[in-house]
Amino acid sequence: MSPRTTGPETQARILSAAAECFSRKGYDATGVADLCATAGVSKGAFYHHFPSKQAVFLALLNQWLTVLDEQLLAATQQTSSAAEAMRRIAGMSRVVFQSASGQLPMFLEFWSQSAHDPTVWKNTIAPYHRYREYFSLLIETGVAEGSIRKADAASAGPALMALVIGVLLQGLMDPAGADWSSVMEQGVGLLVRGMQVEG
Amino acid sequence: MSPRTTGPETQARILSAAAECFSRKGYDATGVADLCATAGVSKGAFYHHFPSKQAVFLALLNQWLTVLDEQLLAATQQTSSAAEAMRRIAGMSRVVFQSASGQLPMFLEFWSQSAHDPTVWKNTIAPYHRYREYFSLLIETGVAEGSIRKADAASAGPALMALVIGVLLQGLMDPAGADWSSVMEQGVGLLVRGMQVEG
Repeated sequence: MSPRTTGPETQARILSAAAECFSRKGYDATGVADLCATAGVSKGAFYHHFPSKQAVFLALLNQWLTVLDEQLLAATQQTSSAAEAMRRIAGMSRVVFQSASGQLPMFLEFWSQSAHDPTVWKNTIAPYHRYREYFSLLIETGVAEGSIRKADAASAGPALMALVIGVLLQGLMDPAGADWSSVMEQGVGLLVRGMQVEG
Repeated sequence: MSPRTTGPETQARILSAAAECFSRKGYDATGVADLCATAGVSKGAFYHHFPSKQAVFLALLNQWLTVLDEQLLAATQQTSSAAEAMRRIAGMSRVVFQSASGQLPMFLEFWSQSAHDPTVWKNTIAPYHRYREYFSLLIETGVAEGSIRKADAASAGPALMALVIGVLLQGLMDPAGADWSSVMEQGVGLLVRGMQVEG
């Protein structure tokens, strides 16, 4: 007999079961009972760790974003300029497309449900705010180092964020429609060129 | 007694009922029976005009896009350059946000359902392809007139399309998060600057 599972281990098993079920059956069609059966935990254990199916999805999303954040940090460390950091970020899109491939239906189902629940919706869009802030900080660095025009400081961050989101969304909706990683790299290149101080 | 309604009139009534029901109750929660009751038509009349609820949604979407296309055409007529046309398009975002305000949950529900049906999905993404082609033609015009660098011809159209989609999506997800119309205008301005021939 295996020993009684510990808290963090149970939580990890529920998350891994959720990743499998949501991706295979869809978000709507997966119930808490399915998650418990796949993870091999009781409903009591489930609700000890998560208040709802939505909470499990948000925890999964955050787990995925934590990995992304680490890669983002690694990619932008020791860059020579803000422009270089932005190009490195654009170069990460291949990895993002790989890890998110086939997951769009699941995200759409979740977004669609959370759009009716203001609290969940707020948690859902929190990562977007965080990335927008991150991009804005990057732009501020560029202005401080003299490579990005000060006049564009306010609009450059949100524009970069919008371009990245627009490429990711289209790439997930329509994977065969273009070489999306190349669109990302060249599109960010154009935008960066547009915000740079001429020299 | 009112005379028997004609075909096009019945179709228009179903579309107007659908716009009201999908927006008020959501796409999932609306059934063909609701559409018939609101439009005041029989199920037989409904199915004479539309094979399914999805077909009604796609017809609504196309109706909305036709209006957008006319505005797009009007905005870009008699412009002095491709760059000017792109800035005019960016300036339309206020109108687009107004007409799409509050409709995101409905779109998410529809996308989420159509993601599981390859035929419907193909019709759903067709407008994106059409706009991408339109933007690419605009870029070609710019290259021909000597205002846009030839080296960027392939990536500039998809990049512009991605920026526009990224701003629209964020603006609908998070209306209070930024002045999205201003982000659109300034973001497109930066991108256009990045693709222009220096002079």
